[in-house]
Amino acid sequence: MSEQPAEISPEVAAQLATLRKSIDNLDDALIRVLAERFRLTQQVGELKAEHHLPASDPNREANQIARLRALAADANLDPDFAEKWFHFVVQEVIQHHRAIANGDK
Amino acid sequence: MSEQPAEISPEVAAQLATLRKSIDNLDDALIRVLAERFRLTQQVGELKAEHHLPASDPNREANQIARLRALAADANLDPDFAEKWFHFVVQEVIQHHRAIANGDK
Repeated sequence: MSEQPAEISPEVAAQLATLRKSIDNLDDALIRVLAERFRLTQQVGELKAEHHLPASDPNREANQIARLRALAADANLDPDFAEKWFHFVVQEVIQHHRAIANGDK
Repeated sequence: MSEQPAEISPEVAAQLATLRKSIDNLDDALIRVLAERFRLTQQVGELKAEHHLPASDPNREANQIARLRALAADANLDPDFAEKWFHFVVQEVIQHHRAIANGDK
């Protein structure tokens, strides 16, 4: 966007670059851990398909949400955001489980 | 859901429990890293507000998306999911930045 001002001082640019490098490192870690999480949920999906278990498990999800909200609060992360984030990830997982059960994956 | 069958064998239950314990461990890691990511973006937001920089930076975001898509592909995570996930997180960050700039946080 052209609204980014050109007069940003070298000190501010350096502070921003330092913070962004750390954010990039954390994003790399997040993507790697998410990839591993999907490897495991893939195995859950295959197990569920093999034994004709439903793709979603509301009791398990309710327990996970309660646990993650408490953990988020302890880490000063907004628990509502943690819960929204979890739903976002689980929706993707359930789609994968259904695809596995339907023989698409 | 009542469709969860009662006849799940102890072996399958044990396999599922093992996978779920690992998923829970990864979720704990994800929440902790997300919390740290928000601590850093909070600092970015304060720096941007102090120097009247815009809350979002499309060039930076385009670079991040390209990098995360490549990393996801390398980790066998669906790059489209990685990009959707990134947008989901960044939307929350931008809301926080605007709140900081408006003096709400």
